[in-house]
Amino acid sequence: MDKKFKYSIAIHGGAGAIPKTVPEKDKKEYIYALKDILQYGKELLEKRHTALDTVELVVNKFEDCPLFNAGKGAVFNSEGRNELNAAIMDGRDRSCGAVTCVTRIKNPISLARIVMEKSPHILLCGDGAEKFAKQHGMKFVRNSYFFTQKRYDQWLKMKEKDITALDHSSDLTNSAKGTVGCVARDIYGDLAAATSTGGMTNKKYGRIGDTPIIGSGTYADNETCAVSCTGTGEEFMRTVAGHEIHSLIKYKKMNIKEALDHFTVKILKPDTGGLIAVDKYGDHAYSFNSKGMYRGSADSEGFFEVRIWE
Amino acid sequence: MDKKFKYSIAIHGGAGAIPKTVPEKDKKEYIYALKDILQYGKELLEKRHTALDTVELVVNKFEDCPLFNAGKGAVFNSEGRNELNAAIMDGRDRSCGAVTCVTRIKNPISLARIVMEKSPHILLCGDGAEKFAKQHGMKFVRNSYFFTQKRYDQWLKMKEKDITALDHSSDLTNSAKGTVGCVARDIYGDLAAATSTGGMTNKKYGRIGDTPIIGSGTYADNETCAVSCTGTGEEFMRTVAGHEIHSLIKYKKMNIKEALDHFTVKILKPDTGGLIAVDKYGDHAYSFNSKGMYRGSADSEGFFEVRIWE
Repeated sequence: MDKKFKYSIAIHGGAGAIPKTVPEKDKKEYIYALKDILQYGKELLEKRHTALDTVELVVNKFEDCPLFNAGKGAVFNSEGRNELNAAIMDGRDRSCGAVTCVTRIKNPISLARIVMEKSPHILLCGDGAEKFAKQHGMKFVRNSYFFTQKRYDQWLKMKEKDITALDHSSDLTNSAKGTVGCVARDIYGDLAAATSTGGMTNKKYGRIGDTPIIGSGTYADNETCAVSCTGTGEEFMRTVAGHEIHSLIKYKKMNIKEALDHFTVKILKPDTGGLIAVDKYGDHAYSFNSKGMYRGSADSEGFFEVRIWE
Repeated sequence: MDKKFKYSIAIHGGAGAIPKTVPEKDKKEYIYALKDILQYGKELLEKRHTALDTVELVVNKFEDCPLFNAGKGAVFNSEGRNELNAAIMDGRDRSCGAVTCVTRIKNPISLARIVMEKSPHILLCGDGAEKFAKQHGMKFVRNSYFFTQKRYDQWLKMKEKDITALDHSSDLTNSAKGTVGCVARDIYGDLAAATSTGGMTNKKYGRIGDTPIIGSGTYADNETCAVSCTGTGEEFMRTVAGHEIHSLIKYKKMNIKEALDHFTVKILKPDTGGLIAVDKYGDHAYSFNSKGMYRGSADSEGFFEVRIWE
C-alpha cells in the first residue's frame, strides 16, 4: 500500500505499577474496553476521518468509560472533587489547545479542541476555561457526574493516610487505571495527539501535571511524530518528553521506536511511566519503564494489538 | 581566565512593538533600571553566588520595580485583578518549580523556587498555590499592592475597546514593558533560568501563557543552556521554545547565538518577541523578532551592555 494512504493509531489508558495479580475479571474488562476503543479509532481512520477528529473522538470514548482516569471515572483531589485536564495538538500546523482544573465539563478534550480553534490562547484554567466553554455551548455536567464508587473509596483510603498517588500506583486497589491518550496518522499523512486525565488521587495545591502541557504530555508535528504520555507527570515536564521525542527524530535522525526506547531508558527516571507515538511514515510505537501500561495500536496493514504488560 | 570560573548573566524586561518615539525621559528610566538590575546580578555572581540564587534575586528586583510587568507593576486581567506567573529551573539536575494565577504573592519567583524545593510537584495554580505558600511562610500582600496608576489606566482603555494585548504592544501607551527574566552561569559552571510575568492586559478565561511552562518560556540544563522568553506566549508554547534551543545546541551542535538566531528567524512566527540565553561555556546571547526587547548582559570578562532596540 502506498505510504501516503497508510493510517495508524495508538492508544493508552494509563501506566504504573499495575500488579499482575489483578483479578482475571478486571483484566478482561480492561482488555475488552481497550479493544473496543482501538477498533473504533481504527474504523474512523479507515472511513477517511482526519487524525485530529479521530484522536478527539477516541479520547471522548475513554472519557465516557468509567474504567479510566479521565472524564467519568476521574480520581478525586484532596477536596473530594474531580479536576480534569486535557490537551490536543494538530500536527499540520502545530496548533493546539488545552484546559486544566475544569470540574464540570463532560468531555475536556473537546473543550481543548474548541480552545484551539476558537480562542487566540492555548491553555485555559478553571473557572475561566468554563466561562469560555459556556460561551461556546459546551456540554456541562454536575461534578457528581464524574463520581464512581471505586474512585471514591480509593480517595477515602488515601485521604485517611494523607498520601497522594497516581490513581494506578496505589497498593490500595488492584484495579489499575490512568491518564488516557491517543495518537494517529490519517490517510492524508497528517498527525494528531490528544491526552486527557483526572490527575492524581488526593492531589493538593492546584497541582497541574504534564497532560495539558504542550511539549510535555502531548505533542504533534507532521514533520516528525505525535506523542502522548502517561505516568508521573512531573518527570515528563522536567524532560519535556513530547518535544524530546520530536527532537530525537528530527535532529538525531532516530526512528520512532529508537527515539521512544532511548527516552524511556536513558532520559526518563525509572518507574515513571510510558508513552505512545506515531510518526509521519505511519509507524507506531510505545515504550514504558513502569511495570505496565494499558495500551493498543493498529494500522491499515492489519496490525491490531492490545496489551497491559510486556 | 579559566572557562570554569567564567560567569555570565543576561536579563530581559519584555519585548514587543516598543516605539522608538518613546519619550526620552521614559527611555532613560528603563535604561537606568536595567543597568541597575544587571549590575546587581553581575555582582552576585562575582561574589560567588550560585546561578540559581542569582536568577531568583535578580527577578525579585524586577518584580519589585513598577516599570516592569511582573510583581508590582503587573498588568490587569479582564476582571481588574493582577494575576501572576513565574517559573525557575536549576540546570544542575533540571529540577524546576512554577506557579500560575496567583494574586497575593509579593514575589512569585520565590514561591516557584519553594515549589521546586519543597513540593513533589512542578506547577501549582491559584488558590492551591497560595495555600502552599502560606504553609511555607511566604510573604503575602493584598492584590492592591500590585496596583500602579499607569497599568490601571491602560486596562481601562483596553477594557473599553474589549481588546486583549501584551502590555507593551498596545498603541494606547508609549511606555513599553513586559515579562521579565534572567539566565546565569556561575563560577561553578552551573546554569539557571527564571521568568516572571503579569501576563496580558485585559486577559480573559484564566489564560496561562508560556512563562510558567517548563520547556517553553523557561528552561535550563547544565549540558546545554539556560533560556528565558518574552513576547506572545502562545508562540513560545507551540514551538516549545526553551527546549528547542536546548535541542539545537545538543543535537544540531549549534552554538548559542546560532541556535537563538535560527529559532527567531526560522521557527518563531514574525513579530512574536525574543529570548535570552547563556550556555555551559559562559557565552551569552539574545535574539528577537519584535521591534524591540528590553535587555542586558554582562560577564566576568568585562562585557556589560543594556539595550532596547538593535
